Amino acid sequence: MGLAASKRRGPFCLRGNEMTNVAIIGATGYTAVETIKILLRHPQAKLTYLTALPEECGPIEQIFPLLRGRIDLPVEPLDLAKAADRADVVLGCLPHKVSMGFVPQLRQAGLKVVDFSADYRLRDVATYEKFYQVPHTDRERIAEAAYGLPELFRNQIVGKSLVANPGCYPTCAVLGLAPLVREKLIETDGIIVNAVTGVSGAGRKPTLAYHYPEINENGFGYGVGTHRHMPEMEQVLADVGSGPVTVLFQPHVVPLTRGMLATIYAEPTRSISQKQLDELFHAAYGDEPFVRLPGRPPQMAAVSDTNFCDVHATMVKGKVVVFSALDNLVKGAAGQAVQNMNLICGYPETAGLL
Amino acid sequence: MGLAASKRRGPFCLRGNEMTNVAIIGATGYTAVETIKILLRHPQAKLTYLTALPEECGPIEQIFPLLRGRIDLPVEPLDLAKAADRADVVLGCLPHKVSMGFVPQLRQAGLKVVDFSADYRLRDVATYEKFYQVPHTDRERIAEAAYGLPELFRNQIVGKSLVANPGCYPTCAVLGLAPLVREKLIETDGIIVNAVTGVSGAGRKPTLAYHYPEINENGFGYGVGTHRHMPEMEQVLADVGSGPVTVLFQPHVVPLTRGMLATIYAEPTRSISQKQLDELFHAAYGDEPFVRLPGRPPQMAAVSDTNFCDVHATMVKGKVVVFSALDNLVKGAAGQAVQNMNLICGYPETAGLL
Amino acid sequence: MGLAASKRRGPFCLRGNEMTNVAIIGATGYTAVETIKILLRHPQAKLTYLTALPEECGPIEQIFPLLRGRIDLPVEPLDLAKAADRADVVLGCLPHKVSMGFVPQLRQAGLKVVDFSADYRLRDVATYEKFYQVPHTDRERIAEAAYGLPELFRNQIVGKSLVANPGCYPTCAVLGLAPLVREKLIETDGIIVNAVTGVSGAGRKPTLAYHYPEINENGFGYGVGTHRHMPEMEQVLADVGSGPVTVLFQPHVVPLTRGMLATIYAEPTRSISQKQLDELFHAAYGDEPFVRLPGRPPQMAAVSDTNFCDVHATMVKGKVVVFSALDNLVKGAAGQAVQNMNLICGYPETAGLL
Amino acid sequence: MGLAASKRRGPFCLRGNEMTNVAIIGATGYTAVETIKILLRHPQAKLTYLTALPEECGPIEQIFPLLRGRIDLPVEPLDLAKAADRADVVLGCLPHKVSMGFVPQLRQAGLKVVDFSADYRLRDVATYEKFYQVPHTDRERIAEAAYGLPELFRNQIVGKSLVANPGCYPTCAVLGLAPLVREKLIETDGIIVNAVTGVSGAGRKPTLAYHYPEINENGFGYGVGTHRHMPEMEQVLADVGSGPVTVLFQPHVVPLTRGMLATIYAEPTRSISQKQLDELFHAAYGDEPFVRLPGRPPQMAAVSDTNFCDVHATMVKGKVVVFSALDNLVKGAAGQAVQNMNLICGYPETAGLL
Repeated sequence: MGLAASKRRGPFCLRGNEMTNVAIIGATGYTAVETIKILLRHPQAKLTYLTALPEECGPIEQIFPLLRGRIDLPVEPLDLAKAADRADVVLGCLPHKVSMGFVPQLRQAGLKVVDFSADYRLRDVATYEKFYQVPHTDRERIAEAAYGLPELFRNQIVGKSLVANPGCYPTCAVLGLAPLVREKLIETDGIIVNAVTGVSGAGRKPTLAYHYPEINENGFGYGVGTHRHMPEMEQVLADVGSGPVTVLFQPHVVPLTRGMLATIYAEPTRSISQKQLDELFHAAYGDEPFVRLPGRPPQMAAVSDTNFCDVHATMVKGKVVVFSALDNLVKGAAGQAVQNMNLICGYPETAGLL
Repeated sequence: MGLAASKRRGPFCLRGNEMTNVAIIGATGYTAVETIKILLRHPQAKLTYLTALPEECGPIEQIFPLLRGRIDLPVEPLDLAKAADRADVVLGCLPHKVSMGFVPQLRQAGLKVVDFSADYRLRDVATYEKFYQVPHTDRERIAEAAYGLPELFRNQIVGKSLVANPGCYPTCAVLGLAPLVREKLIETDGIIVNAVTGVSGAGRKPTLAYHYPEINENGFGYGVGTHRHMPEMEQVLADVGSGPVTVLFQPHVVPLTRGMLATIYAEPTRSISQKQLDELFHAAYGDEPFVRLPGRPPQMAAVSDTNFCDVHATMVKGKVVVFSALDNLVKGAAGQAVQNMNLICGYPETAGLL
Repeated sequence: MGLAASKRRGPFCLRGNEMTNVAIIGATGYTAVETIKILLRHPQAKLTYLTALPEECGPIEQIFPLLRGRIDLPVEPLDLAKAADRADVVLGCLPHKVSMGFVPQLRQAGLKVVDFSADYRLRDVATYEKFYQVPHTDRERIAEAAYGLPELFRNQIVGKSLVANPGCYPTCAVLGLAPLVREKLIETDGIIVNAVTGVSGAGRKPTLAYHYPEINENGFGYGVGTHRHMPEMEQVLADVGSGPVTVLFQPHVVPLTRGMLATIYAEPTRSISQKQLDELFHAAYGDEPFVRLPGRPPQMAAVSDTNFCDVHATMVKGKVVVFSALDNLVKGAAGQAVQNMNLICGYPETAGLL
Repeated sequence: MGLAASKRRGPFCLRGNEMTNVAIIGATGYTAVETIKILLRHPQAKLTYLTALPEECGPIEQIFPLLRGRIDLPVEPLDLAKAADRADVVLGCLPHKVSMGFVPQLRQAGLKVVDFSADYRLRDVATYEKFYQVPHTDRERIAEAAYGLPELFRNQIVGKSLVANPGCYPTCAVLGLAPLVREKLIETDGIIVNAVTGVSGAGRKPTLAYHYPEINENGFGYGVGTHRHMPEMEQVLADVGSGPVTVLFQPHVVPLTRGMLATIYAEPTRSISQKQLDELFHAAYGDEPFVRLPGRPPQMAAVSDTNFCDVHATMVKGKVVVFSALDNLVKGAAGQAVQNMNLICGYPETAGLL
């Protein structure tokens, strides 16, 4: 009905009334409930199986009161045979390190998998093991996985059976930087990505830091020099730019539930006018259904509860400054996962997402 | 796909691929943007015309950045001929007192109207004129309008061309009270409705009271003894109970954007057990797609961004206490309006709303 | 310097430059940090000892970064001999049930105690044991304790060595009701106290319910018919009115850190005018340094971070409606405790509190 | 009583019981109410006169309900003779451009002035006129004014009669950068200052952008390349470093009432270890009562409602990253103004501020 819907890409033909059966593994966190909400509106996807750790199972409305009366599935302990029987595709909402313990079996059972964790994102195992502090237990499968950022790697995703859904920060930062890096318009050494995000990004497990009275009217930088999304950004940007990229990534948490805003600073390699910047980004994203160019610094609320990423680039005092905003639970997680599911299932890329 | 969808009522037959063209009059406030978001997902409604005061018109994305790229309509000054030409139904998001200046012409132009304002809700003109402090200028049309609370008046809405969409507080309170009043289980003199709500209910016009630093970490009672939704509740409950009802309604604003929670206190007319209360409410609402009975006090977040009203009734120290929660912008405004539009257009009542 | 300061009561003579040494037992929660902040500005109190459970001890700035550089005391495990040696008065911030395990020893060591817990508030042990679900282990000392609501029981507090600091909700509700109950202007059977409060009242221990993304943009009623502050209100009001009082108390949590607002509904025993109400409350509180009568419904932000309770009473549809607002951490806990400490130490009642 | 109090500097001798009479000009905004709250606890300052535009005058509790009963002064239209008669010092809370219309008369009347506006901060009139878009009407007085950042310019403030109280962002950024710039440890060309702040910084006048439902769950960058605090930072850092400095300053607003956090990125001029950074900052600020070094990224809540600025510097990927946090209304405005008032009146610098 809207404009963006008209951008639905032709090559992915609709399979009539065929429905895909979808399982969600790890159905008790924020990315899972967000995925469920999206799939309830998806014309070709049918939720058929929800799993979690045995101690977390039960009626879905006890876990998420929001879902009472909207879905007729309990959350059950994972049974691989049931998963294979009931589902065609698995959206894996397990945490890092845990996910690679389940993906091998799910794949062997013939299920397509979109994996929300970081376990299949980094091609360099040593980097993974350094930043995630565990041995990787499914190394050979890393090469099978597509990195699920459709705006950059659509052709590599279509046809795959395993997609590593990107991190929220890498999605936000890379969409802001890719056109510049691809055209070698910025120095690739020392890009600064300063970001703020809401509390839902830290997950649903209660902690003192994110207890309401602690984080309300508060905010702070964290993960100084050590955040796991830093090497992920560097890998993806290196792919885009065909050469090494270093990023100084500094995240902060601020008191909102959902939202993410990256403010990016880079040195231009040559003089760039605002007009050139505008043309560059319009050329890169003008046909993309989920990247918008508002022509001014984006607001987090404008992308809230949507799969959009709003990007604005400008020159300030000789530096390129890019603002990029998305909803960390949607384009930064669940929405992008459904976008990837659409691609590997042959549905319109925007199905369920507008 | 969900449970509630299976409750879609049979008698309202789907007219195949037919689409209804919808205009929104007064398209710059919070109820309008909420209506637009719902209609973008509605399978049978097509937005064709958006209007506002001349000084507020312009591209929709300048008014609501959230809608950038999602809808291809400008906001224009109202032109009655255009409205009649482009639309079948008007969702009127004008404020009280203003709406009755436009509804006559819209109706004369043959348009069906769901009116968000209070102008056609109160049958007693004197009460309207006392609480709204203006002469009513379209008195004869009041009797034409159905009061659009489908859970109670569905049969009176179907077939109508003018629906007075209820106030947010009356929807919340009346859904909590109707089964008790209908069965004469509570004294109808001196019901207390204590409610809290978010700031969006006060509209989009900036004021000192709702400037962020003023209302953040704040909250207060207002409209003491004078709130306009009090006579509306009394009228509707009198209809339900076939006798006069008096309500002491006390609203409060608390620091959230959207949400409403009524806590209602009433004297039982006779001894009632929890089991009887449960049965009463299940009998009243068990088949309703948009009223849920969580079996415990509802949370505002569980109904946020949905058309649900969650209700829980219990006995405390000899009194009946009812909790009722809804999203003031959805079931309290835009969602209920679309529910009413579905009824008068012959669509499934839940279309676009689940 | 301000007006209220001029109300400092004469009979409590200032002991020149004498300082009272104060210990805080249970120094890791929200009421403790609030007490510390107040005592840092108190002209006659010197913090000399802070204790907590062994596993929670450490430098104060690691527990509360806000206090870095402002106080030169570690938090240590409680050592009774040290407490007796270093302090004259103990402000006991221990939770209910735990406190009565320590108060006997503290009192035997000669220390005056203001106890924040409920353990010495209820004179009826059976009620305590029913609502707190434990046997009371220090029954005989209950009678020694004064109930620390100075506006009502100042004369009973002065000279005592053990003060039971009232609950936040009882303070808020009772200050709103006392003048009416004392003058027998309202029916004492079936008073309704509806209250909202912020999240800090639930303490500092992280839980799912008060994890930021869960309670932000949320709110709900809790403790339906079972809240422990209900019998406390009834006991205190019975004392005030010299006869039994029943209260239906219904609390709610809303998304703010600190603040409390009670909206109270009562049946008048006879016709009362607004003028009579105003005179009644001015007579009751006109000389009180910490009760203000704003002449309209109070705002929670107007009492935030202060020891004030703002009260407004009015007639609505034949019922008396009283609004009462305070900061649950100050007048509802730490501030009132210091007010009580001032009374039992012979300092001006307002010392450190304006 | 606390540690920081022991840092009160000797040379500023206390004048016994002498009190300074203080007027606040422009007493209806957030910086004014914050100043009043501080002065109510100040041992040597007595508020004697409050003024505002005629249409904003009235009882102080009608303007700020928080102040009811705490201060016995109305807000009156400014009368120069009254000001001179009642006050020794004026804290000028007028906005930029307006202030320079009043300061000349106040100074001619013999009053000392601490001016919150930007009108006397920039020594280069052309820069002022470019960024503030008005002709400067009191040029000759600029040279008389001290720039009121005591941690850097204490000696220049003492003895002055006109102090330009610094902007909130410059205070925050400059305290984070000064030790590095002074020692020439960072390149002074191209320092990046990325900052987030709360909504109170935008003032008390209601606007759509800061209407609660608009900015709650939102956040955005603003003032891209044009913020007026950018040249102020550059001037002050140039003074500190004895050479030109360029700063790319990018502010953002996030949903909290008060708080500010600058994250600063700079190129080191030579290799620096963490130990060297720590020593540098301890040497610079170890004796300062209002700068704390928490040894990790500061939290905004840890400085909320205090005059502290918390700073942490570290090395990340070859760059120096500095975090600096303060309360924009206290150290960023009212608190720093009182600190300056203390200096020019000969009071302990921390009086009223701990």
